[in-house]
Amino acid sequence: MLTLYYAPGTCALASHIALEHAGADYAAVRVDFSRSEQRSEEYLRLNPKGRVPALVTERGILTETPAILQYIAQTHPQAKLAPLDDVFALAQMNAFNSYLCATVHVAHAHRMRGYRWADDPAAVEAMKAKVPQTVGDCFALIERDYLLGPWVLGERYSVSDIYLFTLAQWLEGDSVDVNRFPKVAEHRRRMAEHPVVDRIVSREQSAA
Amino acid sequence: MLTLYYAPGTCALASHIALEHAGADYAAVRVDFSRSEQRSEEYLRLNPKGRVPALVTERGILTETPAILQYIAQTHPQAKLAPLDDVFALAQMNAFNSYLCATVHVAHAHRMRGYRWADDPAAVEAMKAKVPQTVGDCFALIERDYLLGPWVLGERYSVSDIYLFTLAQWLEGDSVDVNRFPKVAEHRRRMAEHPVVDRIVSREQSAA
Repeated sequence: MLTLYYAPGTCALASHIALEHAGADYAAVRVDFSRSEQRSEEYLRLNPKGRVPALVTERGILTETPAILQYIAQTHPQAKLAPLDDVFALAQMNAFNSYLCATVHVAHAHRMRGYRWADDPAAVEAMKAKVPQTVGDCFALIERDYLLGPWVLGERYSVSDIYLFTLAQWLEGDSVDVNRFPKVAEHRRRMAEHPVVDRIVSREQSAA
Repeated sequence: MLTLYYAPGTCALASHIALEHAGADYAAVRVDFSRSEQRSEEYLRLNPKGRVPALVTERGILTETPAILQYIAQTHPQAKLAPLDDVFALAQMNAFNSYLCATVHVAHAHRMRGYRWADDPAAVEAMKAKVPQTVGDCFALIERDYLLGPWVLGERYSVSDIYLFTLAQWLEGDSVDVNRFPKVAEHRRRMAEHPVVDRIVSREQSAA
């Protein structure tokens, strides 16, 4: 039995969809960001980072989306969520996921969480102003070089598709026109129609 | 035969040490950042991200340190650079590496590369000013919760040790006193004394 701690609108959606897709035995527990529950003593005992996602397993807690996604894929091999039989393809998957985690998500975070990196309110505003450009540049690179089609890795569906879909939810909020990126837009539409994805998106929204 | 593209003083050091440690058949090619070679047409054809590390394999190119490190460990299992027989421990390793990539490295990058996230020179200065705090906070968390000792994952040495050592090189430049973190300081000292680590650090420095 796994327990996923998540908050709607965050990157935890990727782990949530992956668990459902894998047919995992799991419970999803919402962390209420509006009440700063992620900073509560109770939650910090669980996850000292004070962030989501956090996945509680029988062996202990896991954090960080790329690590959780590979873990779900490896522990549920029948769901075929990662190219586990191909070390190079698996590395490509992890490279894509690292880029989403360390570059795309970070670019996006400068819109709402600039205070992490500067104290001056004018600097926080300056960061916010650049987000449409930085996030747009990231998706331009993905469109041109990394979304091979029809899936991120080409013919094989993987957790990279789930993770890309998750971060592509934020484009409108970041004032980036998804239609600049036809492959990303079509990929997002196709993912949204998947019954598993639709179910989890609806469940998170109704819990919010 | 593998080819690693690296620049001295960057996170590519982690992949470089891991290749040497694995006994891999590889060549290391320096990318001259002082001449902006990473932005040259030739390099961008190889790695459209314009960054290091990039690892050229027979199957294609890999980027992103966490992905490259797991790839090296998986393709050289005799070197025991990752807990490949333990899916949970492997996920812990990847969670640690993701944290270094997406939080610690990103915190550090705001000192020299703030222009990525804001155009206003005053904002770039404000980011620089906060780096000692943000990087210090990251290493405080690592010291308290994630460096289990003697190695990152406890008794098992892994690429997480190589990656932590690499980012810990930057502490003095970021005006963070490593002695605030006795476990990190001792780990860094122990790693620096390893013949493989010493050899690659020296080789990169003499090439610079």
